Amino acid sequence: MEPFSGRIGIVGAGALGAFYGARLARAGHDVHFLMRRDYDAVRTNGLTVKSIEGDFHLRPPVYRTAEEMGPCDLTIVGLKTTDNAALPSLLRPVTAGGGLVLTLQNGLGNEEAIAAALGGGADAEERVLGGTAFLCSNRIAPGVVNHMDQGWVRLAEFRGPARERTHAIAAMFTSAGIQCEVRESVASIRWHKLVWNVPFNGLGVAAGRANTADILADDELAPLVRDLMGEVVAAAESDAVRIEPSFIDLMIEVTPKMGGYRTSMQIDYEEGRPLEVESILGEPVRRARKAGVPVPRMQMLYALVRRLDALRRGAKP
Amino acid sequence: MEPFSGRIGIVGAGALGAFYGARLARAGHDVHFLMRRDYDAVRTNGLTVKSIEGDFHLRPPVYRTAEEMGPCDLTIVGLKTTDNAALPSLLRPVTAGGGLVLTLQNGLGNEEAIAAALGGGADAEERVLGGTAFLCSNRIAPGVVNHMDQGWVRLAEFRGPARERTHAIAAMFTSAGIQCEVRESVASIRWHKLVWNVPFNGLGVAAGRANTADILADDELAPLVRDLMGEVVAAAESDAVRIEPSFIDLMIEVTPKMGGYRTSMQIDYEEGRPLEVESILGEPVRRARKAGVPVPRMQMLYALVRRLDALRRGAKP
Repeated sequence: MEPFSGRIGIVGAGALGAFYGARLARAGHDVHFLMRRDYDAVRTNGLTVKSIEGDFHLRPPVYRTAEEMGPCDLTIVGLKTTDNAALPSLLRPVTAGGGLVLTLQNGLGNEEAIAAALGGGADAEERVLGGTAFLCSNRIAPGVVNHMDQGWVRLAEFRGPARERTHAIAAMFTSAGIQCEVRESVASIRWHKLVWNVPFNGLGVAAGRANTADILADDELAPLVRDLMGEVVAAAESDAVRIEPSFIDLMIEVTPKMGGYRTSMQIDYEEGRPLEVESILGEPVRRARKAGVPVPRMQMLYALVRRLDALRRGAKP
Repeated sequence: MEPFSGRIGIVGAGALGAFYGARLARAGHDVHFLMRRDYDAVRTNGLTVKSIEGDFHLRPPVYRTAEEMGPCDLTIVGLKTTDNAALPSLLRPVTAGGGLVLTLQNGLGNEEAIAAALGGGADAEERVLGGTAFLCSNRIAPGVVNHMDQGWVRLAEFRGPARERTHAIAAMFTSAGIQCEVRESVASIRWHKLVWNVPFNGLGVAAGRANTADILADDELAPLVRDLMGEVVAAAESDAVRIEPSFIDLMIEVTPKMGGYRTSMQIDYEEGRPLEVESILGEPVRRARKAGVPVPRMQMLYALVRRLDALRRGAKP
């Protein structure tokens, strides 16, 4: 399979978008970065990736607005989901030529938000792909990303099964040394990731400064992790996604190997940033509720984290 | 019915014990106070009660140790349940003469802890009474208690139905202007109070600085209150206590009238004091678990508040 080729745009070039964009650029792809906070730094000093797979530096084309960046053949969205309200204004200029959009954002509801930003309907949905990134990376300074672990990607079409272009985009990632799996259902990819993300992201905030090791060492919280995972599996089923019960065992089994891992939500909370509470907890709860699936613990976790997030930002929930 | 008369000891003379002791002393009863923190202040300046029912001041006999206080006919325990480990050493000297003990502490497990402190077995249990105090009071300075609202008491024998002495103790409270009801089951009294206390005390801590008005104004937390109350009612049933479903409606109905009420657990949390997490949340959860009654939300609330309490005190949970 020939790798996808064309003009690639990165929207939301934070620790995730900047990492993947830089890797693709280094591999010779034509990558363009939309940056707000780090525009000046990258314009002046370029983009630096410190990585377990080798440090590198590059001077990519960088833009301050979506209008300046202009139409892309494929736009990769790495935006925090708390900024999803900006999707229409960010995506309209870069997709004006009919380009595709791949979201690697967290949680549920992002493909829907992007399709709506593209104008909605079957035509818009057909241009959207979704995926999950298993990546440990941080922005450690303006224009500097630290890649600490993992990095692989799983992707699928938003609507319908995988097709030639899906495999071409996967081949593009592979050509940049990023392991990439194509799957037949983006819902399945997302719900599988939520099995781990709901308990550890949610409890990491609600239980106060709790990393994965803290949670697993607590006699009352550790069984709650398994209960929450069971609720995510039940909720997924209501969204037509079948998750084997053994997947829960696997998730429980791999977590201690991560040491005292701080989830993105815990880090965001501790650093006073808005939490991805709606995509990781709110939307899964709403889908379960709509299907009449009881998810008492998820619902409570959502209610608590939602309020803690609002309090932290000094807003009324 | 003649009011109970004899030597009354107050153990745990904080905002609750000091208030009831002072009211009984003012009414002419022979009340003795065991005090740690406020011993010097009360020894020097006496005890002051500022109250919606009229301020007053008195100079009661006060002791620094249980040994100095010596045997009482009735000991009223107002100790924070987080100090229950001290019950054996506090109660042995004051109950050496075979006196009775009435606990007005919060939550479940206090009568059991007191009976164990008295040596355990049927003989010890027979000397224990339990009750709940509906009282809004605060210690505002050493030796100064502020009584802001309510004050009535509900009491019962720990084992067996109400008897003459139960009514005599109730008459003693009534003689001091404290409304007091005798009930046939201390378990019933305690579980009824937990219907309100579990959600509002627990969420007041877990949802971060959340008073009753904050909780009821939150679209996700407000329905959770009712769900938690339902779990308490189910758990009570497993402890042979029947609570009418309409009691939940009543509790929901009265709460907005309290305004932005901060529960004792919320206040303790905000002031960095240990939380009564085991008596208000842990013991109810353990009883439900033992009976096989599912209480997913209570269990989660317990797990979260327990860890937040331990974190606040700098201890490992």
